Amino acid sequence: MKIEARLSRGLRDLFPEEMIPRQRMLDVIRGVYESYGFSPLETPAVEYLDVLSGSAGEEAQQSMFRVTNPEEEALGLRFDLTVPLSRVVSQYGQQIDFPFRRYQVSPVWRADKPAPGRFRQFTQFDIDSVGAPSEIADVEIMAAMCDTLDALQVGRYRVRFSSRKILNLLLSYAGIPEDQGVHVFRVLDKLDKIGLPKVKLELTTGYTDESGAPISGLGLSDRQAAQIETFLGITGETRAEALGKVRELFASVEGATAELDEIQTISDHLEALGYGSDRVMLDVSIARGLAYYTGPVFEANLLDAPEFGSVFAGGRYDNLVTRFGGQPIPATGASIGVDRLLAALVHLKRVSQPKTTAQVLVTAMDGSLMSEYLAIAFELRRAGVRTEIHVGRPKKLGKQLQRADRLQIPYVVIMGGDEAARGVVTLKQMEVGREESETVQSHEEWKAARFGQQEVPRTELAATLRRLLGH
Amino acid sequence: MKIEARLSRGLRDLFPEEMIPRQRMLDVIRGVYESYGFSPLETPAVEYLDVLSGSAGEEAQQSMFRVTNPEEEALGLRFDLTVPLSRVVSQYGQQIDFPFRRYQVSPVWRADKPAPGRFRQFTQFDIDSVGAPSEIADVEIMAAMCDTLDALQVGRYRVRFSSRKILNLLLSYAGIPEDQGVHVFRVLDKLDKIGLPKVKLELTTGYTDESGAPISGLGLSDRQAAQIETFLGITGETRAEALGKVRELFASVEGATAELDEIQTISDHLEALGYGSDRVMLDVSIARGLAYYTGPVFEANLLDAPEFGSVFAGGRYDNLVTRFGGQPIPATGASIGVDRLLAALVHLKRVSQPKTTAQVLVTAMDGSLMSEYLAIAFELRRAGVRTEIHVGRPKKLGKQLQRADRLQIPYVVIMGGDEAARGVVTLKQMEVGREESETVQSHEEWKAARFGQQEVPRTELAATLRRLLGH
Repeated sequence: MKIEARLSRGLRDLFPEEMIPRQRMLDVIRGVYESYGFSPLETPAVEYLDVLSGSAGEEAQQSMFRVTNPEEEALGLRFDLTVPLSRVVSQYGQQIDFPFRRYQVSPVWRADKPAPGRFRQFTQFDIDSVGAPSEIADVEIMAAMCDTLDALQVGRYRVRFSSRKILNLLLSYAGIPEDQGVHVFRVLDKLDKIGLPKVKLELTTGYTDESGAPISGLGLSDRQAAQIETFLGITGETRAEALGKVRELFASVEGATAELDEIQTISDHLEALGYGSDRVMLDVSIARGLAYYTGPVFEANLLDAPEFGSVFAGGRYDNLVTRFGGQPIPATGASIGVDRLLAALVHLKRVSQPKTTAQVLVTAMDGSLMSEYLAIAFELRRAGVRTEIHVGRPKKLGKQLQRADRLQIPYVVIMGGDEAARGVVTLKQMEVGREESETVQSHEEWKAARFGQQEVPRTELAATLRRLLGH
Repeated sequence: MKIEARLSRGLRDLFPEEMIPRQRMLDVIRGVYESYGFSPLETPAVEYLDVLSGSAGEEAQQSMFRVTNPEEEALGLRFDLTVPLSRVVSQYGQQIDFPFRRYQVSPVWRADKPAPGRFRQFTQFDIDSVGAPSEIADVEIMAAMCDTLDALQVGRYRVRFSSRKILNLLLSYAGIPEDQGVHVFRVLDKLDKIGLPKVKLELTTGYTDESGAPISGLGLSDRQAAQIETFLGITGETRAEALGKVRELFASVEGATAELDEIQTISDHLEALGYGSDRVMLDVSIARGLAYYTGPVFEANLLDAPEFGSVFAGGRYDNLVTRFGGQPIPATGASIGVDRLLAALVHLKRVSQPKTTAQVLVTAMDGSLMSEYLAIAFELRRAGVRTEIHVGRPKKLGKQLQRADRLQIPYVVIMGGDEAARGVVTLKQMEVGREESETVQSHEEWKAARFGQQEVPRTELAATLRRLLGH
């Protein structure tokens, strides 16, 4: 019976043109994280369902892929890397050397409604410092965010940070009971998406959205909504200026000084290390919806591709492992949405998308020279040049050049019987752009530039290619 | 309600000491494969159950993890990377530029009975050339196997190769009907495991194993079993010698010359490229149980760690995609069992297993110097030195040194108020082994060697560490 070759909805294959820049991106991120001494951890994709649930929001619960093994256990595919981390920290307890500074880059699965650019398997790249109460750990996460974005050459970006503690001061300031906080923060988190007027309505009386659906309000008073609006209006050219305005607004709130001193310390350290307000700004409107944050929160946006939203986000969560019944352990970290960041880099044309890793194609025209073609290919490989050899029956050169063209292989080596006898090969550059270059010195060189083709002694081929490829 | 932090059976977490050498190993393999112009592909972990089944043996079927999405579709976790590859090739058809030379490194899942060293999620690293009928493609796979093992410095190894075609000649030679071939090959594949006497019994009358279970025989005659024994006895110092003996034995078999010429061509190419009989031997006893092989088959063993079995195996399979109803497409490839190979490398002490990526720990004793400690850490990171900074409250130096010791961080930077004032730091090497070194030139250097401790001007710290770390 014929089986149809197909994928379930929301799943996709990643071909070389997607994988090559992705792999490069992951290598760069890994390099930055390791420079901070973060170390790799890997956890299995499959976890017990009760381990995955609990901390998950209702939405995450419904969108889980369920798994069973032959023992018929209730399992699921992880939907993030934070739950497995907290499971690991609880499970191994004091066998772990704290602070545990780990990174993990792994796929996660969420069976959300498929939409353009939204897939049910995607990759997260997380760093976390677990068992690190000091604000130094938060400084490091934010600095690593900047270093990563710089290393990826994303262009202009902005890391915005605030603190759950500032939001708690806001609750005191506006006289909102603490247990209403999470609901308020969840509304504030929508600010970028729905705008201030709707946020105010949702904080107070509620409203009816475009589709006619009623959005219920939290029942705050107009005065409270106005106080929140004043707070959200705080901006500053520099972190110091913004922090000064927060201090002023919360002057009367008990305990505000100590809490804000912590923000000050973080800001001062960042400044001293060269992470100025142009890259890391204090933005008190950052709420981060998740209930588990307890301290600083941060997210990063690309200024030249704002439509991609936050490409990097995180914060401090000092109580996460308590759901496994353990003592609270202070932790702080951030997560990159790899697929989203890569999509943004592609959009910004910051990455190239070659269709193959090969830099050279050694063509095969003459079957009797096959061992020569192979020898050339292996010579090049050993010289560090990524080389494909034509692995079909020898056939027309044109077809082989077309392949090099389609796969964007920059160079092609051609050798017929005559050339073999003379100990030379023809080296062809597939994309020729410098026809009338002023740097041309000789007739030979002019021909190479004009037609992208030059004759090279076999013995000099590897060195020539290394030079051309900038090795 | 408290949830117990635990993993389902056969699953495991990989901590930094396992992940760091693993990551290095994967980088090395990737480097070799890319030098051949193989390009990365990634497919989702979840496939339709009917896509996964079919080509899977019965054992693979029973050991599958079943998956469902919110749409209640029948899905499963892939158990190898060959089925997804054949699905991709069928699904995208002529959109793919053949030969499609891809590598994929990904986890696969098999819910086998857990045993020591055997896990239900493990990683495979596959290369395949799809759409490549030429024996050049097979030569490349075997050469890449050798290059990979060399690059990983596994010590002595042996790639053994044969061909399904030689086995088909054996069928003709011994007068065994073709449709019995797969069964015969499956018995021959057990040769390494159960030995020749039991193989002969299983080919003929069957036998009763140690546990008293009856092993049924294939019913071949004693003469046929003897012919197979003669065949299996073929050895040779060189591939040429072994091939000569095969030619002799099959002299009377129709079509043998042409089939054996193909092996000859492969062997000659390998020889010319420097892959001699010491590394790649012709071993006609290699059967590879899987039904889908159609041409050359190969596997690699580590001679210094034979107990790990084959760490690398593959072959040519020209009919795989036909189960999706397409035209046969010629393909050849090989797969590394990453976990098994890594376990062998650990056993052979060919890899180090540091507990962290950090090369230096910047300690923090004096809270008032925190911004100095941070500045040092960032200076080192920017100089390419992987640096951890103490991210707790400043505490006793002894505790911090103990951490460096436990995590095997080779160097520690120490700075108190006095040193800060003098613009110096103390650089301590955690493992001191060159007490009486003859290379010692000065008293300062002797002290450093004796106690692993030296005073370094702050401005020279990064350069000193880069030198010590061999950057």
